[in-house]
Amino acid sequence: MTSKQETTSYLLAFIQGLKEGGLTKVVISPGSRSTPLALLLFRDPEVECYVDVDERSAGFFALGLAKGSKKELVALLCTSGTAAANYYPAICEAKETNHPLVVLTADRPPELREVGAPQTMNQQELYRTHVKKFVELAVPEGSESMQRYSYWQGVQLGYTAQQIPMGPVHANLPFREPLLPDLDFQLEKSFKSEKLTKNEEAVQSIPELSDWLEKKGLLIVGNEVSVTEAQLLIQLAEYLGWPIIGDPLTNLATCGSQSENYLKHAELIFSSSNVEQPEVVIRFGRLPVTKNVMLYLQKLTRETTTFVLVDEQEQWQDLLHVTNYFLPFTISVFCQSALAVDSIEKQKHSSWLNGWKQAEETAQVVLQKETLSQSFNESSASLKLSELLYADEQLFLSNSNAIRFVDRYAMSSVTSYPVFGNRGINGIDGIVSTAAGISAATMQRTYLLIGDLALFHDMNGLQMIRSLKLPVTIVLLNNNGGGIFSFLPQKQLDKTDFTPLFETPLSLDFAKVADLYDGQYIKPTSLAEFEFAIEKSRFADRWTLIEIAGNQDEPVQFWQEVVAEYREKIGEINE
Amino acid sequence: MTSKQETTSYLLAFIQGLKEGGLTKVVISPGSRSTPLALLLFRDPEVECYVDVDERSAGFFALGLAKGSKKELVALLCTSGTAAANYYPAICEAKETNHPLVVLTADRPPELREVGAPQTMNQQELYRTHVKKFVELAVPEGSESMQRYSYWQGVQLGYTAQQIPMGPVHANLPFREPLLPDLDFQLEKSFKSEKLTKNEEAVQSIPELSDWLEKKGLLIVGNEVSVTEAQLLIQLAEYLGWPIIGDPLTNLATCGSQSENYLKHAELIFSSSNVEQPEVVIRFGRLPVTKNVMLYLQKLTRETTTFVLVDEQEQWQDLLHVTNYFLPFTISVFCQSALAVDSIEKQKHSSWLNGWKQAEETAQVVLQKETLSQSFNESSASLKLSELLYADEQLFLSNSNAIRFVDRYAMSSVTSYPVFGNRGINGIDGIVSTAAGISAATMQRTYLLIGDLALFHDMNGLQMIRSLKLPVTIVLLNNNGGGIFSFLPQKQLDKTDFTPLFETPLSLDFAKVADLYDGQYIKPTSLAEFEFAIEKSRFADRWTLIEIAGNQDEPVQFWQEVVAEYREKIGEINE
Repeated sequence: MTSKQETTSYLLAFIQGLKEGGLTKVVISPGSRSTPLALLLFRDPEVECYVDVDERSAGFFALGLAKGSKKELVALLCTSGTAAANYYPAICEAKETNHPLVVLTADRPPELREVGAPQTMNQQELYRTHVKKFVELAVPEGSESMQRYSYWQGVQLGYTAQQIPMGPVHANLPFREPLLPDLDFQLEKSFKSEKLTKNEEAVQSIPELSDWLEKKGLLIVGNEVSVTEAQLLIQLAEYLGWPIIGDPLTNLATCGSQSENYLKHAELIFSSSNVEQPEVVIRFGRLPVTKNVMLYLQKLTRETTTFVLVDEQEQWQDLLHVTNYFLPFTISVFCQSALAVDSIEKQKHSSWLNGWKQAEETAQVVLQKETLSQSFNESSASLKLSELLYADEQLFLSNSNAIRFVDRYAMSSVTSYPVFGNRGINGIDGIVSTAAGISAATMQRTYLLIGDLALFHDMNGLQMIRSLKLPVTIVLLNNNGGGIFSFLPQKQLDKTDFTPLFETPLSLDFAKVADLYDGQYIKPTSLAEFEFAIEKSRFADRWTLIEIAGNQDEPVQFWQEVVAEYREKIGEINE
Repeated sequence: MTSKQETTSYLLAFIQGLKEGGLTKVVISPGSRSTPLALLLFRDPEVECYVDVDERSAGFFALGLAKGSKKELVALLCTSGTAAANYYPAICEAKETNHPLVVLTADRPPELREVGAPQTMNQQELYRTHVKKFVELAVPEGSESMQRYSYWQGVQLGYTAQQIPMGPVHANLPFREPLLPDLDFQLEKSFKSEKLTKNEEAVQSIPELSDWLEKKGLLIVGNEVSVTEAQLLIQLAEYLGWPIIGDPLTNLATCGSQSENYLKHAELIFSSSNVEQPEVVIRFGRLPVTKNVMLYLQKLTRETTTFVLVDEQEQWQDLLHVTNYFLPFTISVFCQSALAVDSIEKQKHSSWLNGWKQAEETAQVVLQKETLSQSFNESSASLKLSELLYADEQLFLSNSNAIRFVDRYAMSSVTSYPVFGNRGINGIDGIVSTAAGISAATMQRTYLLIGDLALFHDMNGLQMIRSLKLPVTIVLLNNNGGGIFSFLPQKQLDKTDFTPLFETPLSLDFAKVADLYDGQYIKPTSLAEFEFAIEKSRFADRWTLIEIAGNQDEPVQFWQEVVAEYREKIGEINE
């Protein structure tokens, strides 16, 4: 691809996204830097173009178009520099009166900013609180993934502008020279989704629903989900005869509804490449922590698999850029509507479900054998912990290894208890304090599974546990440093780089930490002792710190052995 | 005063400040909300007014005025709402080409925002990075202190716009009704400074310099100042025969130049109301931590005392709003120029200096007697610490009580050593880590005087001290909670409010903290043991925590006794 073609393909995908987001009209103010997008919009037969040389006038003209068309989505496009500032009055007016505008400002690429290039100024967040969303787009590139990205940004800009409360959104688009696009270039494939459902009141309005539900499908849950919602999701999976996947925070493993449809050990199952492809994937919220599931989804295409995204928050943040259908419903509304579709013929897909069930059974056999044969370690303790909780207790999983160990090793639990985490931005900061807050809100026994770095990071949170006498049991996976990096490519670095920068051993004596904050300290050396420690923590009149001694290599070796054994069991030859 | 007069007096003072800041021209775009300021500017014979109904045009017209007048300061005034957004293109242009504009946007008062009032939008930081400064002014009130405030804002807006690099500044002015000003109203006093010196290259350009230096003056130092600068300041004080005041961070007490001119115990000296008034005050940087000095300065007026502010950073943040002269020079340049003025006749002011010297002598006698008679406590330990440091060592003073105890009790030191603190925003966060950073930068023995709350807040900073084996000695003033509140009005609250919300006892065992982070722990019970602990810390192969046991009442009582004794000694009758 020439650089002309790169820019062209990227922008054609962007325009396709804008159109899918509802765009039919654009007001262009001529300029040089905006040339490629201006020309491509101008040539697009589906977009009605108006040219207005004064950007202030253009802004108000676009507002008029939106008003006259009963709040249809209208775009504005101008070149770099003060031109963009001229839109401000109309943008302020549109924000106050809830008119959806997509403001597109061309800009020089980053290397030509703050260096005295002509007609250049800081256009980042130019309209402050007077737009609903600002995004600085990437400099155009022509790869398929970049096309999907720009397409998706177009969809989201249009969608966001039209969400209640409606209002203007702003994208700043940096362009490198050459600025003339390739006008003969055509996109090889269409990114267009079949339907964009928005602001509908009920799922019944989706005509495709029963079609989807009769196909070979997969339910994937990513967000923190309540126990009740988890039960409903499992009920739906069983009704459809589909497997269902979700990490520990989804509560699928701990809602009390044990189901063979639930692929608890997805990380292990999807470590194999011998897995079938679904015709439909219905996702709820973000992607789960389970990495092999994400790698599996990345290989699917929206041409052969229909992707449906259910998100009551209407964020539509799909890092895979593949969703065909957006459904702005709660899990509850969606599940109940789907359960009401009575045309499901799941018999014909029984082999589909059976294959997954067998995989899950095999995973469980392997794990039970492995953990039993292994000595007591971080991995087996994580598995064990999930089995020990009572129905009136709760679990908080720290980020980094803690949530992953439970995701990989824990079994579904007969007992129902809620599981929490901080997966918004996945930080290891504030974990102790968050768990303390959850405990204080309910005063129910709260177990926190956490690594030594995260515990150190928020050690001050222990003062809240101590002073409020919270019923907290902390299970510390102490591998003396950032154990997760041993699973990552950084591990290949030389020790002189790896140890100070990633391994970062703290070498702290956590018995002293417990003592400082008046906690009970227990360091079990076997699973039996661990089980006894948990029980002992329930009856202590103070909080408890249970330390599991580990190291950075053992968890990696343990997981590799589990994966090797699983592959052997399902007849896959190991490399 | 009627509410009309309140608004009028406030705005007349604001206009006076703008004019002092260099304003001669304003471009007004008519509107309702801007009425009071528009009318008063229009009536001012010293301000040339232009009226331009289109704000976009007005913005560029003002830019043209600035261009045509070789970058004179020009103001813009418009009403609330989108009018303000119309200025944006010209503001962006002025920012890039460094033209000084003061953009004044009228606004509704806070209670009429975000409630659907007409012609109202969020005007906070409306122009983002395209102005050098944004300030939301207070709703007009007519008291003298509010007039001084608005005057000062006017000065600073004009001044900031013209500082290198020049550019636009923005003030948003909320107005309540009635909007018509009292056109017959006249300000009772002028806030105008005699001279605003800016961007001059040498102090010699100040004709008034020798006049000031021959008067009865006071040098007041507020910022963190190097040992060399402190020596120069003391040299200047001795040359002029003036007293000099400055808190521990100024290094006046620890630069090795012991001088009778230095009022080390200003907090005590100014606790008395029997103190003379100076004819000139020359200030360097911010106000010192010494509260009684601030209260003393607040009672002076700029009519009887000339206030000079030396600040190489040109921030001019004078919370007293009294400065008559701004001097944008380094301490070094100013002192050397002043030392070169050879017309000083200090003989005639010898009684002026002698009065202060006697006060300082008395303060020292009282403190030496008091501390000797007292048992070992937080106050006496703070005094003692400052005497124990060697020349190649350094001291970091935490905020809250630590810096105040050293300010009140410490003597000037024969030994020269640098003193540090975090007085930018005076937080108790990050103190341990900052001290660790200072220690790591020099690898010299660093003493940190700190309270228990601040130490707890940044306890994780100890891990840096531990892992880098930094030569740090922490002297902990442990009064189990926020001891500073016992000096403040909150102390009068009922225990049921005071204890959980202000006293906030941690009840931590800091021996365990030292142990956790492999520090040496010593808890002396006398000044002799404390001195020995300091010495021991110098030779330890790890960091040391020296805990001084205290409580929340003792420091208050101790200070009250000292003040009572001082007043008795100087013959003042105690209330």
